[in-house]
Amino acid sequence: MSKKGTLYGVGTGPGDPELLTLKAVRVLREADVLAYFCKEGRRGNARAIVDTHIGEDMIELALPYPVTTEIDAKHDDYRAAIDAFYERSARAVMEHLDQGRSVAVLSEGDPLLYGSYMHLHVRLAHRYPALVIPGVTAMSGSWSMAGLPLVQGDEILRVLPGTLPLDRLTKEIAEADGAVIMKVGRNLSKIEEALAACGKLDTAVYVERATMENAVVEKLDSRNGRPAPYFSTILVPGWPARPLEMPS
Amino acid sequence: MSKKGTLYGVGTGPGDPELLTLKAVRVLREADVLAYFCKEGRRGNARAIVDTHIGEDMIELALPYPVTTEIDAKHDDYRAAIDAFYERSARAVMEHLDQGRSVAVLSEGDPLLYGSYMHLHVRLAHRYPALVIPGVTAMSGSWSMAGLPLVQGDEILRVLPGTLPLDRLTKEIAEADGAVIMKVGRNLSKIEEALAACGKLDTAVYVERATMENAVVEKLDSRNGRPAPYFSTILVPGWPARPLEMPS
Ligand SMILES: C[S@@+](CC[C@H](N)C(=O)[O-])C[C@H]1O[C@@H](n2cnc3c(N)ncnc32)[C@H](O)[C@@H]1O
Ligand SMILES: C[S@@+](CC[C@H](N)C(=O)[O-])C[C@H]1O[C@@H](n2cnc3c(N)ncnc32)[C@H](O)[C@@H]1O
Repeated sequence: MSKKGTLYGVGTGPGDPELLTLKAVRVLREADVLAYFCKEGRRGNARAIVDTHIGEDMIELALPYPVTTEIDAKHDDYRAAIDAFYERSARAVMEHLDQGRSVAVLSEGDPLLYGSYMHLHVRLAHRYPALVIPGVTAMSGSWSMAGLPLVQGDEILRVLPGTLPLDRLTKEIAEADGAVIMKVGRNLSKIEEALAACGKLDTAVYVERATMENAVVEKLDSRNGRPAPYFSTILVPGWPARPLEMPS
Repeated sequence: MSKKGTLYGVGTGPGDPELLTLKAVRVLREADVLAYFCKEGRRGNARAIVDTHIGEDMIELALPYPVTTEIDAKHDDYRAAIDAFYERSARAVMEHLDQGRSVAVLSEGDPLLYGSYMHLHVRLAHRYPALVIPGVTAMSGSWSMAGLPLVQGDEILRVLPGTLPLDRLTKEIAEADGAVIMKVGRNLSKIEEALAACGKLDTAVYVERATMENAVVEKLDSRNGRPAPYFSTILVPGWPARPLEMPS
């Protein structure tokens, strides 16, 4: 039997292909198989980000998410469908690893921060050599584009999924110094309600498609309810005493 | 008068020079002046990370921190000394910008996450063209080396400075799903006490010099009190139900 292949989780960064790391570029050149999560029939964003770095002889393994739009995300059937999908995906990757082929699994941003890759990692890293190549996160991309540092010194940063229930979201934002709210999309109006409830709606900043083409940065309260796409993040700044001018 | 130069905050990543982004490498090649924070008489870590990418004709501007070891960090005199230092540093950078020279200010990890660069950014970005090049954070470097995803799905991640008082630290860790504790160093025993108080000492992972040479990853409770250097981070995993094996 051949030597087992290595599993790589490769962070692609938030969208700008120039935000790939040198290490990600090297691993993408060296790996035998390129795997990526996507919607059925689409190539997906992570795959698009790395496009210029992929050799023609690379084996591609698309891992299309199951269509679960009919199922409520809080329902057990949803969990079961998603778990079965990760099991299936892990097995598809294993087939290559068992043949001695290294597999680079793409992940937007950083692989271990709410990325699908981590569901493969926890299933495979105990059995195969596995290496995670960290990437620039969407939140770093977002606050960099906005030029807005959220915390300094002793302050605490909270990273909150917008999928949380309203009361929990409100409490977490109220008690936070700085906060990042991810997974905005369909949760936008709930998030706005939570921010308003703790008096932070007027300082919140909305960032859409950070570091990509057609990126948007604007004050959240001046958006007038336009819907938010999947690639959007809300920044809630702490550091109230930050100096905004030089004393002359 | 010449056109104003551009200010760049350039994230260098957590330590491995291969974790620079392609964009950081390009900006470092193109900028006129390379500025970096350091200790008096030392070149500093950020400067070392980018070493192979710096041209010989680049103007270098070292920004040595004032020696404040005699002053209590909670004291007003400390705040005043640090503020004066950032004002001085901003002026030194302005001199170049006013002459039309672009200045790349290095920042370990990501520039706007607890980095010194942000203290220049808030003073200068309103007056000069300014661009932040996001970088891979120390926390991404740490959990990637450890192969340990901290949160998934609806879970919340808290980023906690180890400089917080014991009671606050304990409360934040107790209520968190996943947590990252930065600025460990001299705060190590306080952090261990906080973790023990909420029953999370046994799952915490200690990461030192992540992605650098001589990196260390170990269970925190098996370290037996060895002191922690500046470049160390503690990871507190959430996601208790993560699958660690494939069902066969
Ligand atoms: C499943 S999470 C993956 C996060 C990713 N692994 C990371 O490290 O940033 C997806 C969420 O990230 C945020 N996101 C990803 N890319 C973004 C971008 N370019 N601009 C704004 N938000 C983005 C959105 O909130 C989106 O719902
Ligand atoms: C002032 S903060 C700067 C953080 C940086 N801007 C970032 O984005 O990660 C410095 C702290 O980052 C952490 N740190 C930086 N580099 C590290 C490394 N290579 N390994 C572990 N921790 C590191 C330590 O906790 C250190 O006290």
